[in-house]
Amino acid sequence: MAFPDRVRIYEVGPRDGLQNEAQAVATETKLEYIALLRAAGLREIEATSFVSPRAIPQLADAEEVMRGLAAVEDGARYPVLVPNERGLARAEAAGATAMAVFTAASDAFTERNIGMTVESSLETFGPLLKRAAELGWWTRAYVSTAFGCPFTGRVDPQRVVDVALRLAESGAAEVCVADTIGVGVPSQVRDMTGRLTAAGLPLVRLAYHFHDTRGTALANVVGGLEDGVGCFDASTGGTGGCPFAPGAAGNLATEDLVYLLDGLGIEHGVRLSGVLTAARLISAALGRPLASKVGQAGGWDPLSGQRVA
Amino acid sequence: MAFPDRVRIYEVGPRDGLQNEAQAVATETKLEYIALLRAAGLREIEATSFVSPRAIPQLADAEEVMRGLAAVEDGARYPVLVPNERGLARAEAAGATAMAVFTAASDAFTERNIGMTVESSLETFGPLLKRAAELGWWTRAYVSTAFGCPFTGRVDPQRVVDVALRLAESGAAEVCVADTIGVGVPSQVRDMTGRLTAAGLPLVRLAYHFHDTRGTALANVVGGLEDGVGCFDASTGGTGGCPFAPGAAGNLATEDLVYLLDGLGIEHGVRLSGVLTAARLISAALGRPLASKVGQAGGWDPLSGQRVA
Repeated sequence: MAFPDRVRIYEVGPRDGLQNEAQAVATETKLEYIALLRAAGLREIEATSFVSPRAIPQLADAEEVMRGLAAVEDGARYPVLVPNERGLARAEAAGATAMAVFTAASDAFTERNIGMTVESSLETFGPLLKRAAELGWWTRAYVSTAFGCPFTGRVDPQRVVDVALRLAESGAAEVCVADTIGVGVPSQVRDMTGRLTAAGLPLVRLAYHFHDTRGTALANVVGGLEDGVGCFDASTGGTGGCPFAPGAAGNLATEDLVYLLDGLGIEHGVRLSGVLTAARLISAALGRPLASKVGQAGGWDPLSGQRVA
Repeated sequence: MAFPDRVRIYEVGPRDGLQNEAQAVATETKLEYIALLRAAGLREIEATSFVSPRAIPQLADAEEVMRGLAAVEDGARYPVLVPNERGLARAEAAGATAMAVFTAASDAFTERNIGMTVESSLETFGPLLKRAAELGWWTRAYVSTAFGCPFTGRVDPQRVVDVALRLAESGAAEVCVADTIGVGVPSQVRDMTGRLTAAGLPLVRLAYHFHDTRGTALANVVGGLEDGVGCFDASTGGTGGCPFAPGAAGNLATEDLVYLLDGLGIEHGVRLSGVLTAARLISAALGRPLASKVGQAGGWDPLSGQRVA
């Protein structure tokens, strides 16, 4: 197994993790959550979204969150989700310096999720990515439903490649390929990585976003590592259910990812105990038990055999 | 990824899955559970244990379970756990034709779990395996705590190899290497497989038993598959908590394993929908929700995009 020596963990908890939670979280708690994530060593934290507050009331406090973060000079990257020109203007006014845009490989999904076809979304995001480049922002683009769509089933991997390349050509610094409904397996991940790099996407511009809906998330991470992928998304506390599978797990939990990477001896700069502290805070705020395996079982100290909490 | 075309799924739910559950399960329910497992296509089902009924009251009905199974002529293999001469005599009287013995790679563990050192257990099991061979039984031997001990921490892989080879030399048809507390990661699995085969254990005599305590079980299965390992344990319904990590997941759930193998295109002969039916039965009997990811989220039909229950 020739894994990368070091990978980036891209934390999506404060944005992706909270946007579908029924329980609203206070701005102060979000800022405390983000502060604990930073204290745990996370350096890329998707902080909020500048979508319409009517569409996602859970993140209606985007401006206040950004104000809270602006008070901290810590060198961390706080991308924000931007859906359109209006969102970009709000993000700029709020002091953002990094942005993510969100589309998918399935029209049925984008039409219900963002109200446009994949093609329309690409036409929308092109100018946004250009403007972000002019502003000197770091940018990322999500290709959602890359391993399956909840409305139309199987997704052609070539469609994922086409969308990913269009986004990269439009200037996205990083393309994040997402298994939105958590149906993929490692052989599909390796096939996808092979297709993307063969089509010209440099490995350093590829990230994966796995959901643990069917327990395959960590296996899929290993599938990515085996081809040298260097960035994986995760959500501390396992926040963010899958809206298409009520009761099921959604985002891979950061603590589970950190446990795996620690075991594999891959550097990432994040401390498990710090992640668990942040996980406990957000789970308490959401009023439900930790959704992650390591959150429930604890980490493990190989010297004593004892649980690490 | 050069995986085996076909693997065996060794079902441990009725024995390992139920022995630590607080809720006792009626013999009739156990037999119904096993019947559903068989209907799902499982052909190797560890049915019960001939340990002292005082030690494990949950399995005190071993004789009745065997009587129920004897009524079915279906070609399935129903190994039973045998701890000593007395247990073997009981198993023989009850009509067993396959047996498993259980030791570990850590003295601290065996002393608390089975009341003897690893060396004593090997001396105990040698004659049992010899007697089982005379009876024409299929045999298996567990090497528990192979990736870590809850009392002493890290376990030397060479110790695992030594114990595994001793058991194989004593006549165990299969050696099952178990991550009892769910701490292992895929690089350790690959290292272990390499060491075991290099030491002379044929790959066809090796099985792995993973716990999903920290979410790594399926990743570890893939680690085994990559070296051609052909047998994996699982427990339908995710039964069997980890006694050393209360509240945490234990045995890898059969439905999660089946989902992964189906996705990888590896044959195994088991139908996911049938496993889910058995999982629902046993979860209802135990009075708690399904512990597995696929039990919670359902499988997935790539043609429709819909959940498979």
